[in-house]
Amino acid sequence: MRCVLLAGSSHPALAADLARALQVPLGRCTVERFPDGELDVDLEAPVRGAEVFVLQSLVAPVGEHLLELSLIADACYRAGAGRVTAVVPYLGYARQDRRDAGREPLGARVVADLLGASHLERLICMDLHSRAIEGCFPLPVEHASAIPSLTEHLRTRLPPNAVVVSPDLGAVKRAEAFARPLGLPVVVVHKQRLSGRDVEAQGVVGEVKGKHPVLVDDMISTGGTLAAAAQAVLSEGAEGPVTVVASHGLFVGPANERLAKVPLARVVVSDSVPRPPSLTFPLEHVSCAPVLAAVIERLLTRG
Amino acid sequence: MRCVLLAGSSHPALAADLARALQVPLGRCTVERFPDGELDVDLEAPVRGAEVFVLQSLVAPVGEHLLELSLIADACYRAGAGRVTAVVPYLGYARQDRRDAGREPLGARVVADLLGASHLERLICMDLHSRAIEGCFPLPVEHASAIPSLTEHLRTRLPPNAVVVSPDLGAVKRAEAFARPLGLPVVVVHKQRLSGRDVEAQGVVGEVKGKHPVLVDDMISTGGTLAAAAQAVLSEGAEGPVTVVASHGLFVGPANERLAKVPLARVVVSDSVPRPPSLTFPLEHVSCAPVLAAVIERLLTRG
Amino acid sequence: MRCVLLAGSSHPALAADLARALQVPLGRCTVERFPDGELDVDLEAPVRGAEVFVLQSLVAPVGEHLLELSLIADACYRAGAGRVTAVVPYLGYARQDRRDAGREPLGARVVADLLGASHLERLICMDLHSRAIEGCFPLPVEHASAIPSLTEHLRTRLPPNAVVVSPDLGAVKRAEAFARPLGLPVVVVHKQRLSGRDVEAQGVVGEVKGKHPVLVDDMISTGGTLAAAAQAVLSEGAEGPVTVVASHGLFVGPANERLAKVPLARVVVSDSVPRPPSLTFPLEHVSCAPVLAAVIERLLTRG
Amino acid sequence: MRCVLLAGSSHPALAADLARALQVPLGRCTVERFPDGELDVDLEAPVRGAEVFVLQSLVAPVGEHLLELSLIADACYRAGAGRVTAVVPYLGYARQDRRDAGREPLGARVVADLLGASHLERLICMDLHSRAIEGCFPLPVEHASAIPSLTEHLRTRLPPNAVVVSPDLGAVKRAEAFARPLGLPVVVVHKQRLSGRDVEAQGVVGEVKGKHPVLVDDMISTGGTLAAAAQAVLSEGAEGPVTVVASHGLFVGPANERLAKVPLARVVVSDSVPRPPSLTFPLEHVSCAPVLAAVIERLLTRG
Amino acid sequence: MRCVLLAGSSHPALAADLARALQVPLGRCTVERFPDGELDVDLEAPVRGAEVFVLQSLVAPVGEHLLELSLIADACYRAGAGRVTAVVPYLGYARQDRRDAGREPLGARVVADLLGASHLERLICMDLHSRAIEGCFPLPVEHASAIPSLTEHLRTRLPPNAVVVSPDLGAVKRAEAFARPLGLPVVVVHKQRLSGRDVEAQGVVGEVKGKHPVLVDDMISTGGTLAAAAQAVLSEGAEGPVTVVASHGLFVGPANERLAKVPLARVVVSDSVPRPPSLTFPLEHVSCAPVLAAVIERLLTRG
Amino acid sequence: MRCVLLAGSSHPALAADLARALQVPLGRCTVERFPDGELDVDLEAPVRGAEVFVLQSLVAPVGEHLLELSLIADACYRAGAGRVTAVVPYLGYARQDRRDAGREPLGARVVADLLGASHLERLICMDLHSRAIEGCFPLPVEHASAIPSLTEHLRTRLPPNAVVVSPDLGAVKRAEAFARPLGLPVVVVHKQRLSGRDVEAQGVVGEVKGKHPVLVDDMISTGGTLAAAAQAVLSEGAEGPVTVVASHGLFVGPANERLAKVPLARVVVSDSVPRPPSLTFPLEHVSCAPVLAAVIERLLTRG
Repeated sequence: MRCVLLAGSSHPALAADLARALQVPLGRCTVERFPDGELDVDLEAPVRGAEVFVLQSLVAPVGEHLLELSLIADACYRAGAGRVTAVVPYLGYARQDRRDAGREPLGARVVADLLGASHLERLICMDLHSRAIEGCFPLPVEHASAIPSLTEHLRTRLPPNAVVVSPDLGAVKRAEAFARPLGLPVVVVHKQRLSGRDVEAQGVVGEVKGKHPVLVDDMISTGGTLAAAAQAVLSEGAEGPVTVVASHGLFVGPANERLAKVPLARVVVSDSVPRPPSLTFPLEHVSCAPVLAAVIERLLTRG
Repeated sequence: MRCVLLAGSSHPALAADLARALQVPLGRCTVERFPDGELDVDLEAPVRGAEVFVLQSLVAPVGEHLLELSLIADACYRAGAGRVTAVVPYLGYARQDRRDAGREPLGARVVADLLGASHLERLICMDLHSRAIEGCFPLPVEHASAIPSLTEHLRTRLPPNAVVVSPDLGAVKRAEAFARPLGLPVVVVHKQRLSGRDVEAQGVVGEVKGKHPVLVDDMISTGGTLAAAAQAVLSEGAEGPVTVVASHGLFVGPANERLAKVPLARVVVSDSVPRPPSLTFPLEHVSCAPVLAAVIERLLTRG
Repeated sequence: MRCVLLAGSSHPALAADLARALQVPLGRCTVERFPDGELDVDLEAPVRGAEVFVLQSLVAPVGEHLLELSLIADACYRAGAGRVTAVVPYLGYARQDRRDAGREPLGARVVADLLGASHLERLICMDLHSRAIEGCFPLPVEHASAIPSLTEHLRTRLPPNAVVVSPDLGAVKRAEAFARPLGLPVVVVHKQRLSGRDVEAQGVVGEVKGKHPVLVDDMISTGGTLAAAAQAVLSEGAEGPVTVVASHGLFVGPANERLAKVPLARVVVSDSVPRPPSLTFPLEHVSCAPVLAAVIERLLTRG
Repeated sequence: MRCVLLAGSSHPALAADLARALQVPLGRCTVERFPDGELDVDLEAPVRGAEVFVLQSLVAPVGEHLLELSLIADACYRAGAGRVTAVVPYLGYARQDRRDAGREPLGARVVADLLGASHLERLICMDLHSRAIEGCFPLPVEHASAIPSLTEHLRTRLPPNAVVVSPDLGAVKRAEAFARPLGLPVVVVHKQRLSGRDVEAQGVVGEVKGKHPVLVDDMISTGGTLAAAAQAVLSEGAEGPVTVVASHGLFVGPANERLAKVPLARVVVSDSVPRPPSLTFPLEHVSCAPVLAAVIERLLTRG
Repeated sequence: MRCVLLAGSSHPALAADLARALQVPLGRCTVERFPDGELDVDLEAPVRGAEVFVLQSLVAPVGEHLLELSLIADACYRAGAGRVTAVVPYLGYARQDRRDAGREPLGARVVADLLGASHLERLICMDLHSRAIEGCFPLPVEHASAIPSLTEHLRTRLPPNAVVVSPDLGAVKRAEAFARPLGLPVVVVHKQRLSGRDVEAQGVVGEVKGKHPVLVDDMISTGGTLAAAAQAVLSEGAEGPVTVVASHGLFVGPANERLAKVPLARVVVSDSVPRPPSLTFPLEHVSCAPVLAAVIERLLTRG
Repeated sequence: MRCVLLAGSSHPALAADLARALQVPLGRCTVERFPDGELDVDLEAPVRGAEVFVLQSLVAPVGEHLLELSLIADACYRAGAGRVTAVVPYLGYARQDRRDAGREPLGARVVADLLGASHLERLICMDLHSRAIEGCFPLPVEHASAIPSLTEHLRTRLPPNAVVVSPDLGAVKRAEAFARPLGLPVVVVHKQRLSGRDVEAQGVVGEVKGKHPVLVDDMISTGGTLAAAAQAVLSEGAEGPVTVVASHGLFVGPANERLAKVPLARVVVSDSVPRPPSLTFPLEHVSCAPVLAAVIERLLTRG
């Protein structure tokens, strides 16, 4: 089947990179807004019988980006597309994957149901907050990971005394996934969540004294967990400045302010979401276009 | 079954009015946003076994309001609600109810499918752009109408020489629905659409000379159609200033500027969407809380 | 995929024409009736893995023709057909696309749901009563149109002073679709519906004096609207006899009697439904086989 | 829940009897036809929140009767009915419950799927051709049986030397169901099907000499099986005239002619389908209204 | 599409034979058990885009074998398989295809629903207990039959005076399917079921004196029906020892003991289920691999 | 609605306890096996219109227990039950909730899909392995927890110097849920998984010297994790014998042998699964009947 790559409006730079990586032109699909704010999707690329991939990062505003993705998928469906796969490097609401109290929604399932009600037949996700989210979807999910690109990026940039730091107990597995290819040890910060959103690090499991800490998480949101973990390892004698690495870099709310206070060698994230403007710390983006392209190519050549 | 009224964040004023009209307290359901912009829905009202009505006007940003409605419905479902009905006084994307070109989405059906994938069992809509949209929904739709309230509002405010004006051929049926209870004749402006969004009125079918024109439409978006129709009837000798009436008053884009140029006696709309700030023409809102309350009460007492 | 064309019993002549236009033999599929009146479908053509198109015009009795189409689709499904597309040049119940009173069914949606419950994966429709009906279907709908063939047929047969007449306000858009390729002006008859089924024309918007009227509608059912419109334009000085053109020619009930009273140059319709016997006015059929074949070929070559 | 009884147009006499048996008035629901033959359903009875039962016998033309039932169910659904149960004393296409050749449809499943796509939540059937058909339905099926009423009717009308005759091997279980309450022995005619629709009886298993034969089947269609079986037992010395009894009496095609040749004491059937006109043999109808009413009452009082 | 053959753990010998017959290697898919007894499925064969066939005989424990099949199908689905077809030579619960009393489950439909909820798109079954079971499935069912192989096996092994015996009235059609290719007459044992599971033969319809009886059934479970039928024909003068033939040989409960008492020339069954150990009568297995392979090849080459 | 409690065969003792706790008799529903091993479910309790709860612990063999639950639910559905809720104190396959390698099944989702295809409308689960599993279910899930009963049981049995031990990083949250009501500190054993199923504890985060360790986990399967953790804390100076507590006690494979080697004060688990025979360590069961009864009562009184 012929392959067509389309993109929603959430992340045009990544769309262009992905098109380059795939060596296909980006299919023409204009997304404008009517005066009342409703989306005006006009699919110009011919898709009949084609294998269509639609890139859309589900960052805020997630509802609008999701609706846009649904509208593009609907246009493809009605125009006779053979199969439509959503390429979602960042999946919003993934952290709402369990209800603790009785009367919350299960946000991840809600998003999965809405995507499932769209004319999508498959999903490509990258470094999901939890692999268990796959269970929410009525669609098959292909997993991509930025971790190999991120570790490759770090390989030549880290000093020999580096140690991978998991900023809390829940991130240990992911920290090990970073540490293994780099041949580094892992230490764990055992944080105690004091209030709902603020966080305080407590102790460190493992040796950090005199070592260069590489803090690892799946995403950087407000930066609270990582800033606290940095503080914890530095106060245990780690040698700053620290390296921070994560698959997704949202940098929302007080993130810039918090990270600006940490002695940072670098913050490395993939470009799964657009780079927010005016960050004042040293940020390095590693493109996730190659890994997404690799997944797409695997789907095209084998399926 | 016990009745619980909840509200999304799209239109708090109407929610309060609806609660008053129903004489039930508004159920506690807080909708906040996490720092990353994701919705944080917390249903505090007990809903187990209850008949739940959720008011949410699907105005821009429609995707966000729809996702919020889905999250509230999901919280109700997981908390054991008996039946959840969405009360949607304004339904966005209703004008995207047919594809003219080959590669557009069918926006109304997309929205209907997403609502259908939510844990909703019924929908209350008001003065849908077209009644045929009901066919898109996998849910039963109860129709409410603001027209009786609007005509009642006009009854004592119109001069005896009033004539109802349909601003284009497609609105004639609706104009007749306004004219009938007021005992007024209907004239029609036959417009010719010159470009995609701008509009020019052409001729008038029926007698307007020396009459007070009452221009009627289902919604006022950018005001283009109505402004052109006003000009057409005034240039045919109608006696200004004109009255404009519609079920839904969006007033987006150049609406204020356009309507400000028309000699207006009044613009009358329901409060199906929140009133935009700083309109400079004489706007009268007629509450749709009573009619929505009446539909809900009918559902409660007979069903 | 191999293409197989099958036909229900509703319109054998069109099936033969369509097979010729596609240059494929009509697949063997006998439809007989058991003594108790039940349909006895026997699919003889091999369909395994094939792209199957089933022609069935959903004219009266719609229920029987729909059940027959479902049975044929089921036989294809169980015999391993790759994909089954229904080709439905005339779709019954399309006029029941909205509920005005509270306790009517939504006939168009009911038919769409029943077709959706059959083993059909796609639908080809022609000149639907309203494009909004597409929203009812759980299947993708490909739209065909007889209008180009009909205007082509008229091009050399109309006098230079022709004018296109829309017989009511609702048909103006369609009238414009006929007038544009012929380079003709459009006038509109503004009818007032006096009782449920009888109709009386009232006024004419535009100039008809001394012109040859070409009355245009999407379908001719009992002929009431068109006969009244003809009378209206003739009494306004149009020059008879008139031309009448429509996509679908049902000619039911008093149609023949009514049209026989109108001075008719010709009535031109497509053959989307079989020609009723013993019509006494000059009827010209334009085959819709070429346009249906073109849609099928487009689906086959690009999808 | 309030109970509302509606009826399609297939069997008005049974509807009236059922209403009497239930002691509820028949809900107003007019079913007319538009001039083009399409059904015009108008539900006048209020059904909001009610437990609705719709009587419709699915006799020929099954497609039309099924579509009518779907339209009535849709009207109920949109009018807010609580639950809609179809009461189908005769279910057409039940004999198409298995495919023998490769390219036939599975008619019973097709009908079940179409009923399942209607807004029905439950089905009441009577003496299904095979109980295994229940497996086709996506709805729960309540089984009613006319056999107790039929045997009760026969009890005082049979001579003491009666013997129940199963007209072929497949009907033995049913024959036993008739024989048991009457305390009669069963004999079996072993027929050999010579051609598709004609039938010839061969031998008789069991003693019939000098006995009054009571031939039993689930339905009488063309009467071929029963006429042949009658001939077989008479030629083996049974004492005519014979009694024939069945749940469903269609009497189609050559039925009257065939049965008129048999020396008949009586033919007893339920009124699950309307009585065909001008039958020339002694036909006795036993009403199935009481048994249907009993099932409905059981559903109402316990569920 | 590339074809991959996988196998559950229910019948490894048949899987190996099927792979040989298809001349494809058996795809690697290990099924082990965790210490808690849960299945540990690990699909090693690449299946992306492939046409996958999974052989699993649904013999006892049916629930475990069904869950295993669902897990394998899920692994295929998530690994991007093109289409997954279950090959089920023996389908458990097929005898629970109708409810006689009111509060039984419909076991065949339950199994069909569970298979339908798995990521299967098609089913191949062999000699289903009743063809009507196909109506339970939400999947298309391809029917295979061991009867041609079984009759071929018997052709040279039967004496000239053979007669096919149907052990009860319900098996006559199947007996005829065996008798026709062998050119043999059919006789019927008319059994009377005395208690739930024990059985007593009564009479024989047709001539067996001095003939070699070939008893035919669709399956041999406890052997009660066949043992009784053998006794019946022998006591009517048939010439032993008898031949017994069936599509499925379960031989459960008292089967060995019962059959050991019958003078048996041979028992011939297909290998649709694994051979139980330590049967003491002369059992001949005819492989169903060729017929299953033929169905698969037909699906592959034509679909 | 009337409440009926039924039970599958997985855990009769708990069923009896639950009936006592609810003060309702256990509804009669016999589950036997046919000679071929298929389940023979016979629902004797009347369920029409009732709120039915079916207790079934999904322990090994999970497939059989799941099929049994589906059959019971199907019998309820066909007998007209109002709503059927499965009460599943232990949910098998919950640990297969994510795929790490590419070609595994998602076992938890498979089980959820099979339960969703049964005639169940709601699920009550207890102490799920992960709350995120709720996202797999197409049914609403009510969560019960044995933790309050377990901590209550421990309250008077623990020495004052007790400390709660999380046997690995993933169980910390659960450990905190145990520690909080008891007012105890939490320490964490940081294990390193050396091979697939064997486990070795490494270090301890927090102070255990001279303290009585209370090891906490959600379930005890082979006991490997807990035995290793016990060894770890004892070798760090904790004061034995240890207390072990978990919601679910499977004790499979080498569990008895492993735990017998640990100096145990007591092992406390709920009775969510039947007690395995011949365990040689001091095991205390806390009934989960009261907490399940409380959830059911909450559903009954409020819903």
